[in-house]
Amino acid sequence: MSLKNDRFLRALARQPVDCTPVWMMRQAGRYLPEYRATRQKAGDFLTLCKTPELACEVTLQPLARFDLDAAILFSDILTIPDAMGLGLSLNEGVGPVFANPIRSASQVNKLAPLDVENELTYVFDAVRLIRQELDNTVPLIGFTGSPWTLMTYMVEGGSSKDFRYAKGMIFCEPKAAQQLLSTVTEAVIDYLKAQVAAGAQALMVFDTWGGLLSTQGYQQFSLQYMQRIVAALKSDPSTQDVPVVLFTKGGGQWLEAIASTGCDALGLDWTTSLRSARKQLGDKVALQGNMDPTVLYATPDTVRQEVRKVLDDFGNGDGHVFNLGHGIHPGINPENVQAMVDEVHAYSAR
Amino acid sequence: MSLKNDRFLRALARQPVDCTPVWMMRQAGRYLPEYRATRQKAGDFLTLCKTPELACEVTLQPLARFDLDAAILFSDILTIPDAMGLGLSLNEGVGPVFANPIRSASQVNKLAPLDVENELTYVFDAVRLIRQELDNTVPLIGFTGSPWTLMTYMVEGGSSKDFRYAKGMIFCEPKAAQQLLSTVTEAVIDYLKAQVAAGAQALMVFDTWGGLLSTQGYQQFSLQYMQRIVAALKSDPSTQDVPVVLFTKGGGQWLEAIASTGCDALGLDWTTSLRSARKQLGDKVALQGNMDPTVLYATPDTVRQEVRKVLDDFGNGDGHVFNLGHGIHPGINPENVQAMVDEVHAYSAR
Repeated sequence: MSLKNDRFLRALARQPVDCTPVWMMRQAGRYLPEYRATRQKAGDFLTLCKTPELACEVTLQPLARFDLDAAILFSDILTIPDAMGLGLSLNEGVGPVFANPIRSASQVNKLAPLDVENELTYVFDAVRLIRQELDNTVPLIGFTGSPWTLMTYMVEGGSSKDFRYAKGMIFCEPKAAQQLLSTVTEAVIDYLKAQVAAGAQALMVFDTWGGLLSTQGYQQFSLQYMQRIVAALKSDPSTQDVPVVLFTKGGGQWLEAIASTGCDALGLDWTTSLRSARKQLGDKVALQGNMDPTVLYATPDTVRQEVRKVLDDFGNGDGHVFNLGHGIHPGINPENVQAMVDEVHAYSAR
Repeated sequence: MSLKNDRFLRALARQPVDCTPVWMMRQAGRYLPEYRATRQKAGDFLTLCKTPELACEVTLQPLARFDLDAAILFSDILTIPDAMGLGLSLNEGVGPVFANPIRSASQVNKLAPLDVENELTYVFDAVRLIRQELDNTVPLIGFTGSPWTLMTYMVEGGSSKDFRYAKGMIFCEPKAAQQLLSTVTEAVIDYLKAQVAAGAQALMVFDTWGGLLSTQGYQQFSLQYMQRIVAALKSDPSTQDVPVVLFTKGGGQWLEAIASTGCDALGLDWTTSLRSARKQLGDKVALQGNMDPTVLYATPDTVRQEVRKVLDDFGNGDGHVFNLGHGIHPGINPENVQAMVDEVHAYSAR
């Protein structure tokens, strides 16, 4: 059962590749007409996530169009708090809303540990189905939100501009915040292990909101828990060989600390230079990123030019996975994605 | 005409002070009931900005309440594009909107240099009036938006989530973008010089959106123009002694480059550690910042504790101006501001 295309896994292991592998955050998404069709068929976003056949269908859509080097499980980052009973609803334009946010220490106390295996079966069913359909063409990435990122939604009850409640908890009730983060971290560990058991071949942790903390706050309330996740995965024989990518958006000031967790690769947003990240980190980890997703609004020629800039910024050597610095925007023309993917492979061919 | 309280100017010059000076971005703002009253009297925000007596009134309000060490001119960062004829309107909840955004190279070509002295008289009148009313109690800070930040609003036509048009211009029509930035930079230089001529005793450049560029993009499209501004001010005998503070929100990865412009101080947001910034920059510049503004949602006790953390993070030595890492939020209780200001002075007393 060896992979037909293992560039992505080889790059994460900093092994030589014939050309730089590429995939995109939110590659199965609204910019694709076929995605919008499936989404309409599903009725709403949560049904799409919770129906393994449909999740599988949209996961595979971008691979049918583009020469991508990895698939990523189609799901939402809020599956865990949803399963914990917070009452998730997802509405276009509004973003996620939790009917029952967690605002107090007593609510944190009442939060029971999650029986991930039984409560999130639909996710693992989707992973199994996708692996079967992929038929070892490219590897499948499993993922989770970071504990801090999940906590922000759980406490705010949805998206936020300033995170006043989540930050309020870490400033005023740090022990409650730590207890909440620990409960979430335990669930995340079980969640990632079960994704691997179902067939995920690499794991990514999305720390979307870690970059909004102070340096000290990041260490205490985000990184510490991601470190716990990496340690748990790396000390378990069934997951220790699965590469783990940590991505803190806006985390460019803390790369050495993130790399010290023992993860295999760092996701970088476009504000961080790949060259200076490599200089700082040496061969400690692979790097994934980091083209500004707004480049894809431009013309195919400009896209190719910016792709070359990113590849040149990384320079020669192994350990680079090309990606965007954030998820692809819904309004992008798929032609530009084609130009990006093809240019990554052509320009980086060894 | 020596100042009764010159802590702020001494700290910017890295001279010894009896205690750390403190002021707040948006200290004259909606969190104050007296501000809301004046605002209501004015009718709308632009009238408030354009009526020197009212702008003076709100500038002084926070100083009557709190023991602040500097006043900052009450104005909007979009006065320059407004005077250039882009048709600014400011609506609460919506943010700024320009009726005539600049989207093409031909529109950039048509943009005439601004006669700042005559078109923005209301700003300089406000500066003169505020200086008179301040009566040398504390220094008055003048300010501007950075050329890149102004350009984002001019091109987008308002606020944006992803800056697709402004970034589109730098990716696809970099020469038009450079021309636009140059035109704006010339206006900014005249604007700051005229503020100094009218009485501003320190200058701050707000680069609110520079942190959304790539490292290379930041250098080319934001920092380069701020550098030109600093050079123009420092080479003119009438402005060379006026301290200049550059603040790029999210610019923590580029501190050395910013300090190399020859500015006197760097504004830091809360994601950057004051300690590590000092370590990187040595005595090259003073540092201003950087408490997370959401701390002010907490209790006075928590506010005092977080103030001490910021002061301890900077440590002993000269060259620190306490501030928030971003503007104060409208929903803050003024009591917490009181706790902050008093704790800064008390805890830092030499």
